[in-house]
Amino acid sequence: MDLVKHLYPEDMVLQAMPDASPTRWHLAHTTWFFEEFVLKQFANGFKPHHPQYGYHFNSYYEAVGERWPRSERGLLSRPTCQEVVDYRQQTEERVGVLGSTLSDQAWAEAAKVIELGLHHEEQHQELLCTDIKAAFGLNPLFPKAFPLPGDKAADDPQAHAAANERWVNFAGGLHEIGYAGSDFHFDNEGPQHRIWVQDFAVHGTPVTNGQFRDFLDDGGYQTPALWLSNGWAWVHESSITKPLYWHEIDGVWFEFSLHGLIPLRDDRILSHVSAYEAMAYAEWAKARLPREHELEIALGQSSSDEGQFLDPDGFLHPHLAGRDQGLGSAYGTVWDWTQSAYTAYPGYYAPAGAIGEYNGKFMSSQLVLKGGSCVTPPGHVRSTYRNFFPPGARWQFTGIRLARDL
Amino acid sequence: MDLVKHLYPEDMVLQAMPDASPTRWHLAHTTWFFEEFVLKQFANGFKPHHPQYGYHFNSYYEAVGERWPRSERGLLSRPTCQEVVDYRQQTEERVGVLGSTLSDQAWAEAAKVIELGLHHEEQHQELLCTDIKAAFGLNPLFPKAFPLPGDKAADDPQAHAAANERWVNFAGGLHEIGYAGSDFHFDNEGPQHRIWVQDFAVHGTPVTNGQFRDFLDDGGYQTPALWLSNGWAWVHESSITKPLYWHEIDGVWFEFSLHGLIPLRDDRILSHVSAYEAMAYAEWAKARLPREHELEIALGQSSSDEGQFLDPDGFLHPHLAGRDQGLGSAYGTVWDWTQSAYTAYPGYYAPAGAIGEYNGKFMSSQLVLKGGSCVTPPGHVRSTYRNFFPPGARWQFTGIRLARDL
Amino acid sequence: MDLVKHLYPEDMVLQAMPDASPTRWHLAHTTWFFEEFVLKQFANGFKPHHPQYGYHFNSYYEAVGERWPRSERGLLSRPTCQEVVDYRQQTEERVGVLGSTLSDQAWAEAAKVIELGLHHEEQHQELLCTDIKAAFGLNPLFPKAFPLPGDKAADDPQAHAAANERWVNFAGGLHEIGYAGSDFHFDNEGPQHRIWVQDFAVHGTPVTNGQFRDFLDDGGYQTPALWLSNGWAWVHESSITKPLYWHEIDGVWFEFSLHGLIPLRDDRILSHVSAYEAMAYAEWAKARLPREHELEIALGQSSSDEGQFLDPDGFLHPHLAGRDQGLGSAYGTVWDWTQSAYTAYPGYYAPAGAIGEYNGKFMSSQLVLKGGSCVTPPGHVRSTYRNFFPPGARWQFTGIRLARDL
Amino acid sequence: MDLVKHLYPEDMVLQAMPDASPTRWHLAHTTWFFEEFVLKQFANGFKPHHPQYGYHFNSYYEAVGERWPRSERGLLSRPTCQEVVDYRQQTEERVGVLGSTLSDQAWAEAAKVIELGLHHEEQHQELLCTDIKAAFGLNPLFPKAFPLPGDKAADDPQAHAAANERWVNFAGGLHEIGYAGSDFHFDNEGPQHRIWVQDFAVHGTPVTNGQFRDFLDDGGYQTPALWLSNGWAWVHESSITKPLYWHEIDGVWFEFSLHGLIPLRDDRILSHVSAYEAMAYAEWAKARLPREHELEIALGQSSSDEGQFLDPDGFLHPHLAGRDQGLGSAYGTVWDWTQSAYTAYPGYYAPAGAIGEYNGKFMSSQLVLKGGSCVTPPGHVRSTYRNFFPPGARWQFTGIRLARDL
Repeated sequence: MDLVKHLYPEDMVLQAMPDASPTRWHLAHTTWFFEEFVLKQFANGFKPHHPQYGYHFNSYYEAVGERWPRSERGLLSRPTCQEVVDYRQQTEERVGVLGSTLSDQAWAEAAKVIELGLHHEEQHQELLCTDIKAAFGLNPLFPKAFPLPGDKAADDPQAHAAANERWVNFAGGLHEIGYAGSDFHFDNEGPQHRIWVQDFAVHGTPVTNGQFRDFLDDGGYQTPALWLSNGWAWVHESSITKPLYWHEIDGVWFEFSLHGLIPLRDDRILSHVSAYEAMAYAEWAKARLPREHELEIALGQSSSDEGQFLDPDGFLHPHLAGRDQGLGSAYGTVWDWTQSAYTAYPGYYAPAGAIGEYNGKFMSSQLVLKGGSCVTPPGHVRSTYRNFFPPGARWQFTGIRLARDL
Repeated sequence: MDLVKHLYPEDMVLQAMPDASPTRWHLAHTTWFFEEFVLKQFANGFKPHHPQYGYHFNSYYEAVGERWPRSERGLLSRPTCQEVVDYRQQTEERVGVLGSTLSDQAWAEAAKVIELGLHHEEQHQELLCTDIKAAFGLNPLFPKAFPLPGDKAADDPQAHAAANERWVNFAGGLHEIGYAGSDFHFDNEGPQHRIWVQDFAVHGTPVTNGQFRDFLDDGGYQTPALWLSNGWAWVHESSITKPLYWHEIDGVWFEFSLHGLIPLRDDRILSHVSAYEAMAYAEWAKARLPREHELEIALGQSSSDEGQFLDPDGFLHPHLAGRDQGLGSAYGTVWDWTQSAYTAYPGYYAPAGAIGEYNGKFMSSQLVLKGGSCVTPPGHVRSTYRNFFPPGARWQFTGIRLARDL
Repeated sequence: MDLVKHLYPEDMVLQAMPDASPTRWHLAHTTWFFEEFVLKQFANGFKPHHPQYGYHFNSYYEAVGERWPRSERGLLSRPTCQEVVDYRQQTEERVGVLGSTLSDQAWAEAAKVIELGLHHEEQHQELLCTDIKAAFGLNPLFPKAFPLPGDKAADDPQAHAAANERWVNFAGGLHEIGYAGSDFHFDNEGPQHRIWVQDFAVHGTPVTNGQFRDFLDDGGYQTPALWLSNGWAWVHESSITKPLYWHEIDGVWFEFSLHGLIPLRDDRILSHVSAYEAMAYAEWAKARLPREHELEIALGQSSSDEGQFLDPDGFLHPHLAGRDQGLGSAYGTVWDWTQSAYTAYPGYYAPAGAIGEYNGKFMSSQLVLKGGSCVTPPGHVRSTYRNFFPPGARWQFTGIRLARDL
Repeated sequence: MDLVKHLYPEDMVLQAMPDASPTRWHLAHTTWFFEEFVLKQFANGFKPHHPQYGYHFNSYYEAVGERWPRSERGLLSRPTCQEVVDYRQQTEERVGVLGSTLSDQAWAEAAKVIELGLHHEEQHQELLCTDIKAAFGLNPLFPKAFPLPGDKAADDPQAHAAANERWVNFAGGLHEIGYAGSDFHFDNEGPQHRIWVQDFAVHGTPVTNGQFRDFLDDGGYQTPALWLSNGWAWVHESSITKPLYWHEIDGVWFEFSLHGLIPLRDDRILSHVSAYEAMAYAEWAKARLPREHELEIALGQSSSDEGQFLDPDGFLHPHLAGRDQGLGSAYGTVWDWTQSAYTAYPGYYAPAGAIGEYNGKFMSSQLVLKGGSCVTPPGHVRSTYRNFFPPGARWQFTGIRLARDL
């Protein structure tokens, strides 16, 4: 609820495009997840909060039943925002008292689903931010979703001095990839398995706005040889000439942020580019995108506690972290596109039932992203985490980290 | 403002389809009309209320400049509803004091545009009702835009007893068609001109729900011989099997109204059908749709003060008026589709400038409708008034009145 | 068959767009009309030529049964052209011997349908020409459907000297409109009825290429005030900047003709414009398009035997006829767009059965055209004939004739 | 030319869908490849055969210049088939005499491009077959592209007895993947590199029609849990209920072949399914699709000389080869879908210039297929060959081979 404290009800029903959901839908859907998969399965004498909410707020779980079409979520103004807040509070209370009514064994089972539900809600906290950004980004008034904080990151050029030309080398050979422990992780992070890796290097910082402007000024968007065939078609069909939120107004460049329109600073980290743009940039820069397992190995040697993760009162925009060693800004700045298709690890099978639809069924025509962005909840990501989006998606905080063979 | 008193801010930004506009847009656009065409032209030292509102709230006036795309009006959550209310109040005040600052001649000119603006706003009052109905009609919760009044019309079957099989005959010959007086009227209602008319009859009441159910039960929607070629294509492409707001739930028929879902009563007047459905019904009933001038002649012999016009506290749904003579329910129930294309009267030329875009430029592929509906503001319609919509439009309160040759 | 003598089999299966049909389809469909409506109804022991041809070659007759989709006629390469020629010959023979096997009364009935079939085939002769023009007009090689004849019309500038600024006046009052005699005419040409007409003038010649270039050079395609709302949307969605077959190559203007690419001569009659372009031009020229009945009255005072009608060895392209009196080039040059929607005359009812689908069911969203073009078969048109196309259609030989009030 | 000897000119201009090209286009494009990349680069005093053919017959080479849109190849009837045959003959002659005019070094370079052009033409021989099948498969007359041969494969049930439930095991560990030799191979087959593989099994024969009918009869197409999210959307949007060329006519199943409609035999190999269908079938059969490198390893242990490769006089339809050991029908029956996205091998960089567009730019949203089909030219495939298509493609001879972990 902290994330929406600056929004009006008008804002919360807005759906910018089929991929993005209204704020109010996120608030209700994450609650529905607890109602459907926890209360309905475990609570004695379960009755739904409202008979229609299951239909309204199911996202994509075929096993659970019919649902309102995803692309038309912006056509529903009821239930109102207040009714959704009530739904959240009452469901939270019902989950809160569940433990005292269950046997130890039932509670252990329920607790696992509750833990999944909490991680699910963390994922939607990030989507809530990117979706309201998409909604406000269309409006010529450039509304602010969050007030601009007065912190150093937002306005101090000194904070950005650390960007440099630094490649970090990693040794190949046989590596173990995937999650092996017993702590919480998503099913698609396993099973752990061996993989043969060649020596490689990853750049220490993601590409900056200034670096990408060089690509743009060099005619990158007009040079077919830099693009994949699908990417070139996408550039033309969508009339793409710049990153999603860049605006040139009377000869001056700005970028739209969750804090409204701000000047485009060359020393900030580039965000909101598609994988096609990332690949074309890499081709232009005579490098390549990293492979999924390369970034997992590299991230395994970085620490995740120094990022600029989601903070409702912070600067919700990518910037350099100023770290000198290893992969600066590896976590908590932008998601790094990889060239790796999102597919099942050897030995992976999706769990049976609705929960099995969580990750497995999306293993087609999507690419893996690694790391985490400035609106990723802290503690949510880890080196084995596999984010995935289609190559043309741009409304997430997606950036470019270069790699090369050694 | 009286029309929106039961709505939430969430409701007021919703756009059900490209043809329908959000409530808040109607509130702002009708105010913009006064700002653009009155204040900007006549007020000394004019400054716009907000530099972006002209772009936001221009509907289709090419001569005035660029505008936000019509089909994306639902993508704007700002300015907020409260900001639009402020815009209305301040603009009203500015127009209110305008007279005292102008010469008599300038004021006479301004007053003519103000009168046009008031009629313009009356048209949008009707659209506001039909557009919020379209928005709520999509929601499985079937919200109410207005509470159901406890009046006789809403629930008393006695009020509907007057429907009967009654044709009213009219004599042909040379008739004068179009507006001739000096009172307010739209440009497209003139010039008055002569037309030769054959003897004809018009039915005393529009088609009822019960009569249309007979057509439906007789397989009307599955019989190509009843339909125009374009209509038959429309039925198939849009998968049409019943009027827009009819719902069959567990074997019982309902219709969606501005008061939520109500039982489908056979003795209520049919509404929300396209011209294609109207023509197919007429073919099935071995009659035809009236021509534009036939209804103008017929309406000229009815009085307009007994209809069920727009009343924010009334029953906003078509029903029989119970009149025994002439054309019962000729005004204030449903708009009657005609078979006549909307074109210029002989001698009509659109005025120069932006005001000339009001009516003239829509004279292509639309049909004229006559009369007025239960959400038409009282006093707004007259026999010469020419409403027009494309033949496939259904979200207005459009009904069927049969005609035949004598 | 004479019309296709210069085509290759490759050409005859080509469908340029959904509205245009392959040459081979026209040859087969006109034959199918005789098989379905003559032989099947009247011939003893009727057997179809091929069990699938009815499905292949029915155009739009719902009463006859299912048919191959119109927009996919170019996806059928079989039956081959030779098989279609065989189909034509054998069907002709079967119709030829039909008379000797029927009673007088049956033959009288059959003869009426045969007469309709012949007129139907004449209509398709025109469509065959315009459809192959559409197909060849897309090809950068600009193939010729007919060799360019060496006649005066094609290359002698003297033939074009007669264009001048001449308006022809007509007196209004009560007029009889529609066909009244017993000779062949289409059902939609009647019944004859009275209409009150105001005095009007029609221009003696259709608009020339040179006149339309003035409109183009004056920014006509970029001036929204000249266009209907639908027309302006059409210009933008279809990126229209000139008549359909005009090409500017290295600064020189050409137009594509059935004889390949030829220089664009200012003194030739303009063709291949939509009704939207015609209306915008008329607005620019401070005139208007004629009404349907105005042209019928004007045509009634012209003779139809001096046009440049369809002649497989002639110059199949609009040019001035050089007549000094009345409406020069009224027949046999271009079809004149009118501003009148195509609707039923008072008292018109479509005949029952499949033949009733011939004209009646298209009375929606189309405009009437009058006169006849250089590829209209001679004797096919008359003053009461009503051609009709949607306002955006351009692949017919459609031109502009101005009218004005007196 | 042998492949088109049974076709009519009408057939050769037909484009069934945007992905499929007309026969005549294949004949001309493969010739253009020699003209553009051999003659233009190496021949003294080069002049193009025709100035427009480069524009007409370039497929997708951006570096070479503009080209006619792929989806509109069926809109060109000129040059005629005979003109294309002439183009082929004359170009062949010009290439034939090229060697005698060049230095040894120039000839060595030219010979490498000629070799590429020959392999390019072999690829188009396969496409020519699948594209004419797509064209004829739409026609209710079900034309034959090739006469049905009287051989054993086409009609002898004994030939199909070898299908059985046989899994073939393969040992994992470090394997070398990719082409290493100096013989001809495509750029995307290298560089050779090491990969760590887990033990796996591949089924000895691809799935048969009968096995897939069990899936269909078990409701496979109606069970969302079996499908990827994209696959389920594809099934619904495209209304998919069976493999591409299956037809149920009066309760009897047939499949459309290059020899026309033939009975659907349970013991024939299934073909013309998408990767989505393949994955759903594998899920239903409690197995999975193989990975690209697994099939390369398995194919490396099969011989390619026993397949049913493209033979213009043979049976051009998948059937069992009757081999008892190893992977029967591994080559020359159907292409096996893999679950592996088509991406660059470590160290792969596309060559500079137009030739570099051959393979590299398609590495997005496509899956690799391995093996080869009954219309693949003999000698064209090898274990390292990487075919690729989007997951929804069905018009190639694509089948299902199951794999599983050990």
